[in-house]
Amino acid sequence: MYGFENERFLSVMNGAANNIARINEVVDELCKEGYENLFLLGTGGTYAIISPLAYLLKTNSKITFYHDIAAETVKAKPKSLGKGSIVITASLTGTTSETIEVVEYAKSVGAKTVVFVGDAKSPLGQAADYAIENDAENDNLVEELHLQFFALGARFMKNNNEFPEYEEFISTLKIMPEVLLKVREENDERAEMFAKKHKDTKFHMFVGAGNTWGETYCFAMCVLEEMQWIATKSIHAAEFFHGTIEMTEKDMSFVLIKGEDETRPLVDRVENFVNRYSDVVQVFDTKDYALEGVSEAMRKYVSPMVTATQLERVSAHLEKERGHSLEIRRYYRTVEY
Amino acid sequence: MYGFENERFLSVMNGAANNIARINEVVDELCKEGYENLFLLGTGGTYAIISPLAYLLKTNSKITFYHDIAAETVKAKPKSLGKGSIVITASLTGTTSETIEVVEYAKSVGAKTVVFVGDAKSPLGQAADYAIENDAENDNLVEELHLQFFALGARFMKNNNEFPEYEEFISTLKIMPEVLLKVREENDERAEMFAKKHKDTKFHMFVGAGNTWGETYCFAMCVLEEMQWIATKSIHAAEFFHGTIEMTEKDMSFVLIKGEDETRPLVDRVENFVNRYSDVVQVFDTKDYALEGVSEAMRKYVSPMVTATQLERVSAHLEKERGHSLEIRRYYRTVEY
Repeated sequence: MYGFENERFLSVMNGAANNIARINEVVDELCKEGYENLFLLGTGGTYAIISPLAYLLKTNSKITFYHDIAAETVKAKPKSLGKGSIVITASLTGTTSETIEVVEYAKSVGAKTVVFVGDAKSPLGQAADYAIENDAENDNLVEELHLQFFALGARFMKNNNEFPEYEEFISTLKIMPEVLLKVREENDERAEMFAKKHKDTKFHMFVGAGNTWGETYCFAMCVLEEMQWIATKSIHAAEFFHGTIEMTEKDMSFVLIKGEDETRPLVDRVENFVNRYSDVVQVFDTKDYALEGVSEAMRKYVSPMVTATQLERVSAHLEKERGHSLEIRRYYRTVEY
Repeated sequence: MYGFENERFLSVMNGAANNIARINEVVDELCKEGYENLFLLGTGGTYAIISPLAYLLKTNSKITFYHDIAAETVKAKPKSLGKGSIVITASLTGTTSETIEVVEYAKSVGAKTVVFVGDAKSPLGQAADYAIENDAENDNLVEELHLQFFALGARFMKNNNEFPEYEEFISTLKIMPEVLLKVREENDERAEMFAKKHKDTKFHMFVGAGNTWGETYCFAMCVLEEMQWIATKSIHAAEFFHGTIEMTEKDMSFVLIKGEDETRPLVDRVENFVNRYSDVVQVFDTKDYALEGVSEAMRKYVSPMVTATQLERVSAHLEKERGHSLEIRRYYRTVEY
């Protein structure tokens, strides 16, 4: 597959799966000490990538949680963030300044901090109470973080006598490296066709919901805008009908991200609508893949990982078709601001 | 002022202020019964308009709250939403189907429900445990809801022995009708200039943060997209630097929404950046107004109302300059979907 190394992907993903034992130790220790709430924090990509964990907790647990932007948290100083809070965040390089700042702030008010990093010796790794290390790259980061965030969330729930699916869920996470590799292979041609068709498209409307909303937001912003300089709007499927709907035109490109959780009907509704009024509708649907070894009950939980894997192929082919490297930035970490 | 009736505005806003006594009764009764968490829910505009209440609670209270989209809540069925929950939402017409559904769902799982509606006899008003009525129109709805949401949130905090600013805050809310009318008058010319300059602009990037983020999102979606069919992206100021920044071009229109809460420096940072790389930057800043009678300490709290009042003038002048009525819809409540 263009721009992709199978072995490297499996090694990164298995690295994440192998971290589950360590994640369990950390969570068990934190639960033993007791806590009041979880703060799921991130910056750009990681704010989006942690969003399926928020959805997992929302739909399966009574644990109090907040899902917020790191830099805003540092400024806003939430009253509920303090002793008794556990902050969970991530940064591949471990150098994202806003993420480091929020971990330092959280510690200063008495919270515990758990970070997922590519290098535990990075500034973020050093700043946190618990650094869980797994080296990764941009093209496998989303799924390896999903896997670890999910394992962590599931452990919190299990320790709270919730989430009876725990054992099956963890077993499922462990086979996801191979499952996702197969999705990548199966989606490669479709992604290439999308990239060829849309190499000159100037604007896309991305629509998603539930546990794939984060990836909808993330792909639009962190890939199309950041790496390909293509304008996007990402809009939640339920919100679409309350404003953005009026932008629908025959030639408006809609990219619908469908997963298999409870909110799927919200995206179905958008799909039914835009198919009537636009000629340019693309659906990336996790249901298109067999996901061998994943039970019917588990499919909805892993949807965000499947979505990310589908869309990574789109990134790769857009790079090739547009002759625009995914590595070029005009501003980010290029100029001072 | 074009498309605006001073007397009607004052009457709607004073109607909201006069509801404070009733809001207090409702909140006091709910607090007496006890509760575990608040669910701040909305649909499109109201999801955005309730967002400053979420920020108020976040920064001043330890009350557990969730701020979610109504339709997603009905599907996702959050585990924390049930007996002990209080749902707070609104709909001007009282006929927004997703909002009615979420109130019915919340009641079915044992939650209490409080709604702000234009007509207590509407389906939403009838469905809720407590309906607080104030008739309004699209051009004053945001502020009249802010006023009532704020009064409600402040009362919850006061009853929780938080928010020592309570008395001054409520006194401030009561003078806001006159204060906001003056802001509208002072901003009218600037809004007209913006509308003239941008009558043919095809795309705007809206940036905001903190308690004015909701209005940033709302104005882009519910006015420019819904009422003027102009494409937008709204992006949180902290998130801007992690993807969307790469879209910056000399001719990209940036509209920055600045309030006076703790997150203002996040928008300052975007302002500094885009002023270097774009020639088309407009800032709507609450600091430009004297807000007579509002103390320095209270200014940050009322920023969302000031922002909404500034932007309403922009809506009105865009309608005039573009010859595009704010009332026309091609799809919403026009076709079936």
